[in-house]
Amino acid sequence: MINAFCKVPLWECNGKLVRVAQGQEPADVVIRHAKLVSVTTHEVLENANIAISCGRVAYLGLDGHTADHCIGPDTQVVDATGYYAAPGFMDSHIHVESSMVGVAEYARGVVPHGTTGIFADPHEVGNVRGLAGARCMFEDARRVPLKAMMTPPSCVPAVQGVEDTGSAIFAKDIAEAMTWDNVVGLGEMMNFPGILGGEDNALGEVQETLKADKAVTGHYTIPETDRGLNAYIAAGISADHECSRPEDVIARLRMGMYVQLRFGSAWLNLPGYLPQLLASGVDTRLCTLCTDDCHPDTIVRDGHMDRVLREAVRLGCDPVTAIQMATINTAECFHLGHEMGSITPGKCADIVLLEDLRDFRAHQVFIDGQLVAQDGRALFEVEPYQWPDWMTHTMNLGLEPTAETFKTRVDLPDGTARVRVMGILPGETITHDVVREVPVRDGVLCADHDADILKICVFDRHHGAEGVHSQGFVTGFGIHGALAQTVSHDAHNLLVMGDNDEDMALAAQTLAQCGGGEVAVQDGRVLALVELPVCGLMSTERVEVVAEKVSRIEQAWKDMGCTMPSPFMTMGITSLACVPELRLTNRGYVNCLSFQMEPLLAD
Amino acid sequence: MINAFCKVPLWECNGKLVRVAQGQEPADVVIRHAKLVSVTTHEVLENANIAISCGRVAYLGLDGHTADHCIGPDTQVVDATGYYAAPGFMDSHIHVESSMVGVAEYARGVVPHGTTGIFADPHEVGNVRGLAGARCMFEDARRVPLKAMMTPPSCVPAVQGVEDTGSAIFAKDIAEAMTWDNVVGLGEMMNFPGILGGEDNALGEVQETLKADKAVTGHYTIPETDRGLNAYIAAGISADHECSRPEDVIARLRMGMYVQLRFGSAWLNLPGYLPQLLASGVDTRLCTLCTDDCHPDTIVRDGHMDRVLREAVRLGCDPVTAIQMATINTAECFHLGHEMGSITPGKCADIVLLEDLRDFRAHQVFIDGQLVAQDGRALFEVEPYQWPDWMTHTMNLGLEPTAETFKTRVDLPDGTARVRVMGILPGETITHDVVREVPVRDGVLCADHDADILKICVFDRHHGAEGVHSQGFVTGFGIHGALAQTVSHDAHNLLVMGDNDEDMALAAQTLAQCGGGEVAVQDGRVLALVELPVCGLMSTERVEVVAEKVSRIEQAWKDMGCTMPSPFMTMGITSLACVPELRLTNRGYVNCLSFQMEPLLAD
Repeated sequence: MINAFCKVPLWECNGKLVRVAQGQEPADVVIRHAKLVSVTTHEVLENANIAISCGRVAYLGLDGHTADHCIGPDTQVVDATGYYAAPGFMDSHIHVESSMVGVAEYARGVVPHGTTGIFADPHEVGNVRGLAGARCMFEDARRVPLKAMMTPPSCVPAVQGVEDTGSAIFAKDIAEAMTWDNVVGLGEMMNFPGILGGEDNALGEVQETLKADKAVTGHYTIPETDRGLNAYIAAGISADHECSRPEDVIARLRMGMYVQLRFGSAWLNLPGYLPQLLASGVDTRLCTLCTDDCHPDTIVRDGHMDRVLREAVRLGCDPVTAIQMATINTAECFHLGHEMGSITPGKCADIVLLEDLRDFRAHQVFIDGQLVAQDGRALFEVEPYQWPDWMTHTMNLGLEPTAETFKTRVDLPDGTARVRVMGILPGETITHDVVREVPVRDGVLCADHDADILKICVFDRHHGAEGVHSQGFVTGFGIHGALAQTVSHDAHNLLVMGDNDEDMALAAQTLAQCGGGEVAVQDGRVLALVELPVCGLMSTERVEVVAEKVSRIEQAWKDMGCTMPSPFMTMGITSLACVPELRLTNRGYVNCLSFQMEPLLAD
Repeated sequence: MINAFCKVPLWECNGKLVRVAQGQEPADVVIRHAKLVSVTTHEVLENANIAISCGRVAYLGLDGHTADHCIGPDTQVVDATGYYAAPGFMDSHIHVESSMVGVAEYARGVVPHGTTGIFADPHEVGNVRGLAGARCMFEDARRVPLKAMMTPPSCVPAVQGVEDTGSAIFAKDIAEAMTWDNVVGLGEMMNFPGILGGEDNALGEVQETLKADKAVTGHYTIPETDRGLNAYIAAGISADHECSRPEDVIARLRMGMYVQLRFGSAWLNLPGYLPQLLASGVDTRLCTLCTDDCHPDTIVRDGHMDRVLREAVRLGCDPVTAIQMATINTAECFHLGHEMGSITPGKCADIVLLEDLRDFRAHQVFIDGQLVAQDGRALFEVEPYQWPDWMTHTMNLGLEPTAETFKTRVDLPDGTARVRVMGILPGETITHDVVREVPVRDGVLCADHDADILKICVFDRHHGAEGVHSQGFVTGFGIHGALAQTVSHDAHNLLVMGDNDEDMALAAQTLAQCGGGEVAVQDGRVLALVELPVCGLMSTERVEVVAEKVSRIEQAWKDMGCTMPSPFMTMGITSLACVPELRLTNRGYVNCLSFQMEPLLAD
């Protein structure tokens, strides 16, 4: 594939590179005396010398050949003695929205960790503001050196007919997106039932991507590696990050599918399959690394692709193999191996100088030959992005939430009622469809704090007065107070949960006022707030600030009585109608096995 | 890259493949119980079951999963018990003209040997009839299942200004060729001095190919692996078959260049570098296999890519690694890994059933799921191609060669004269620039059979009466009689060599009459003749017939006194002005170090 992510197309600068390689014209940058991580040969080569021009590698001096002939008076000379030079790391599948910042700010966070490219699926923004929103989100990215390669979201809405979303994306939209210069493939095709069932739109989106000669990324969650997986791959879906078992990984590799081995903030799959994968001895050429979702605190505290590489090596992976996964393999997955992913002549000069191949701490990071980060700090500043109003005014509730709004009225006498409840177990993504008794007082179904049965409501925030909202119950969180968030997969409606209507109302009001985000309320007081005014998903603040706010809200969860890990994530997927068993959308309960709506009252 | 070489584009048939994989619609073909050579994981997997539809793999049953659910009443079921199923072999660089038959007939010869795809550079036809000729040559190929992927010739003429060729190809022509559906890259960029010297046309051809997102193949012959090679690769040239030493191969791989490891009819490079390459332990992902030139007798007697694989394994290469080189690596070299090169769902069903992984004898060969060869025989017939007249009338000498034509007149008295002579050593491609004394009789420079100094002449066969011809001398062949051929690299003018003018005249007349080819004449009698009426390069007969005629002319060479191996090849490159030291073109002697013309008389 031709890519728009190099500073200068090779066909415009090959004559100059030829002259620089031969010392007839000076290089822009020369990196001397590095230990080269050669991902094409799987070697570490001592004393490598790299000359860069037009953002590309012009000359690679090995075997005692210096690049001194490429040095002129204005050449920036970098002494890399003692450092490894590896190709810049690439995340083969990421939703930047999970980091709660825009792509430019995200870049400021991840580039110092050696990440030079991401293959990003703006699925969350797509659900709120459609492809136009996704496009707008990536305009922000053009201000920073990170290569933010877009795979537009394929599944908006994730499931048809059970909720109200802010947008819908069809095959014809994908066809148009394939003409954008920053689109390199299709975002994860979560609708595998649609593919297997021959749905026109699902197959059509894949077809439009294939016509554009781009890669289709997948999402095949079920532990099945025979007919369904075959059909899914035969449809043209060539990469997948949804493996949980070693046999899932190996089956995909044998079927020619790239696997995006995942180690994100919440989904930590690497330990679950990498040791067995390595022990099997199979060729890892189709293995890439990804985070999928990376929370702001993970970036600030632990890093990004360097963290994934660290984990891979900790699990026994040879470091050069791990780097291959994060570089050349990823580039090839997206048909870009001839443009990036290795430090070789003609390729983009995306280079990380590393202290070692164990911690993968990046001393310096170059993108297109430009020094963009050093010793953990980005060398570029990110000014606040001028978001258009339609990206920052997405709390269109059409009502003013009060305590009254949250009262679930039923035509029942005082006492108790049997209701359907989403049962949550710590660390599990699956919810359980259970029946419990809750109090009925004055014709209102009530939460029961002592029994850990909380009320939960989903408000359509996209359609104003025409929107509907729903009420349900959940057990497992064990809090006193209320939490609300607009990060509620995948429609990102307003989700409010609590043990009393007053706190729930305050939580909802708070988010309605600040444009969305996350909030914790207890006894009429806001304990913590993360404002996410861009689509109700992303902050306009710096990632460090967001991380700090997120940690405060995490503390609030604990203070409110929750002992669950990542309760925010878990709450955020109580509305995710594509994962079993019972979910609550703004239209009400969805049985996620039958995809039928279910009533609140049991029996 | 999107390719036009699959029966149905994936975007047109993915819905059907999905149904077939799930048993909802029958497959066209099911191959059962094969030992799968998995080139994506580097494994051999027992009891693999492959269902094929629309020419593509729809289902791959492993781990005990049969493909029985894909079998309907009309499904062709193949029992592959005891056989290995490997992806079809691909030759990453081949000049079909060296096989002296058209591409369709060539296909009949090589497909039974497991070859399902070739990346072919019609360089010889290009020199005679330009890109139009190359295009015409590949129209013939559309009649057969072999995937004849074209890389149009980049260097026509090979060297500017020292000879008269039938055509010239410029960057603008390449730009047009890149729009043809069967063009997948640029043919070998032999003009590496042009690239290194920044010549507009050489760089421009590369630029046009890169703009079309296709691969540029190379030809970098000098034993240099530093600045020049760097510059050459940085220019965008991504594959090369011209290595002779292990260090040449490893340097290219480290620089991210694909290497087309060669084992052709005349250039047998594999033994010279493969053992050392394997011993080095480097990743072989960028290694492909090629023949470059494959003579008809090699095809008939020894095979094609099966022969190359046999040699690789004989040299110690793991058979699965060798098959990777001939399949997935080659596909990836041309940005086609997502379409072909592995037996995985969605890919073209190009499959070879092999008896073992040592001899690589092909039991059955499938292309796009169609059985096309069995037990060494093609299952398709090739009718004679209706060549247009301009492809078969290329002997435009503009004169009737007689003995008088060959008399080299000089203004010298009887006795001897010191002349420049091309010195040939057996098995070497380099010629030596030597000075010898030859007899002068009646103002004519004469050959001297006893001293093994033959006369050699090159006739422009492209420009008729406007053409010029030249005369020179050669030593090393040691024959009595005359030989003539129109396969004379790269202009493919008429080359005539002998120890007497009468036999030379008969040889030239014979080829002029039959449209070109090769002929051996002694004492007024034609000993052997290979008619090559298509561009003076290719026969219209079957490859077995051509091989038989070639063997007869080889015998004639021996009978005439030549002890050199492959004298026909060696004679054919006495006119190749891009290889040192001294060559004779139709304009006269060329010093191939300085690229200056040289006079016949020394001093």
